Amino acid sequence: MHFTSHQVLDDGLAERHFTLGEIPGILWTPGTVTAPLILLGHPGGLDGMYPRLLGRARSSAALGFASATIELPGSGSRPGLPGVDAARRDLRHAVTAGKPVGDDIVDRLITPLIEQSVPEWSRLLDALPDIDGPVGYSGGILAIGVRLALTEPRIVAAGLFAGSYVPASTFDEARQVTIPLHVLLQWDDEGNDRQMALDLFDAFGSAEKTLQASMGGHRGVPAHAGEDTARFFARHLRR
Amino acid sequence: MHFTSHQVLDDGLAERHFTLGEIPGILWTPGTVTAPLILLGHPGGLDGMYPRLLGRARSSAALGFASATIELPGSGSRPGLPGVDAARRDLRHAVTAGKPVGDDIVDRLITPLIEQSVPEWSRLLDALPDIDGPVGYSGGILAIGVRLALTEPRIVAAGLFAGSYVPASTFDEARQVTIPLHVLLQWDDEGNDRQMALDLFDAFGSAEKTLQASMGGHRGVPAHAGEDTARFFARHLRR
Repeated sequence: MHFTSHQVLDDGLAERHFTLGEIPGILWTPGTVTAPLILLGHPGGLDGMYPRLLGRARSSAALGFASATIELPGSGSRPGLPGVDAARRDLRHAVTAGKPVGDDIVDRLITPLIEQSVPEWSRLLDALPDIDGPVGYSGGILAIGVRLALTEPRIVAAGLFAGSYVPASTFDEARQVTIPLHVLLQWDDEGNDRQMALDLFDAFGSAEKTLQASMGGHRGVPAHAGEDTARFFARHLRR
Repeated sequence: MHFTSHQVLDDGLAERHFTLGEIPGILWTPGTVTAPLILLGHPGGLDGMYPRLLGRARSSAALGFASATIELPGSGSRPGLPGVDAARRDLRHAVTAGKPVGDDIVDRLITPLIEQSVPEWSRLLDALPDIDGPVGYSGGILAIGVRLALTEPRIVAAGLFAGSYVPASTFDEARQVTIPLHVLLQWDDEGNDRQMALDLFDAFGSAEKTLQASMGGHRGVPAHAGEDTARFFARHLRR
């Protein structure tokens, strides 16, 4: 891990950009204190996502938590993934034409992202300095969150966003997840199937899981839903 | 309205029991300050419900809100409602026998409770002293909450519990409700139909509505879900 910049924002939040091998990322820490950490998932494209990621990092810092994120494989400045890009085009064509999105498209789009990104998040946890405490994972592509919740033992709680297509294998994995979950659902999310989201919530094996559904479309998550997610992490990451 | 007792609890919460005509009730106020008010709905039986109602009143008082409740028609010390009691027995028999609960049973059980109790809650609002500010309604029998949300203009926000049988007319009323709603759903509620609860949530006409589903049965609402409901009221009742 190589830090490429370090600045302290006006509210005291330290922001450090880094590269992890060839992967760019950002670490936010409240002061110099070691802290529990929330991994900030996102749909890819760190530059475009920066304002929203910073907002989430500020919310985490208000609870005393550090936040970190890395670029997704194939997004932003990272080398493209031709198969994933082709699947994304196929998905867009299907949605535009009002056709159902076939399982094969979802598999070609999501499965390579899961398989490449999940080890990268673990690699980030190995490399991060000054992080002392349990780890949460929040947001991003749903199927990646499910795989991380199932396979990365340092992640003890996950806030997931029911806003992504998932391969059938994700349902099998969801049944084996046992960590506490807080799932946000946008009730009128234009790009997603509400029943699929409810079925996936039902499938999770966790004894503590909460579904919080709010009105509006994919990007319309109300501020109070974000605050409730922050409190979920406060309950589970504070020792 | 006739106050029959007045005590200040150890945390400074004032508890006054009263009768409103023949209806017993309880008013809790934080100090002597006039305050926004939350009406505490419940399934009937003030004495048995008292510990949980007091807990809800304490949560409201922590936000600076008064709370008030009245006995339901046919419950506790009030005269019985033979038709409602018979319908309740029929419902219990159907559930015990594993049979579907027919619409006629739900109508005979719930419709008289709506029709008698809704004017009583309004009468309570007319009679309560020292209440200055908007009113919320929380919990209790779902169909009563829907009717109150639709017809009592002093109620500006409602926290509903998706844990009751509702007559078909409640769906029609739900479509006309426009005030902000926060709906709690217990995902594995033994006595209720989850799909019905989701359909009713979908039906509400309110531009701001949140569904918060937690694990567990009817009485297993986790503490954090109650806290999120309190924050919902804080957003909507504070001026």
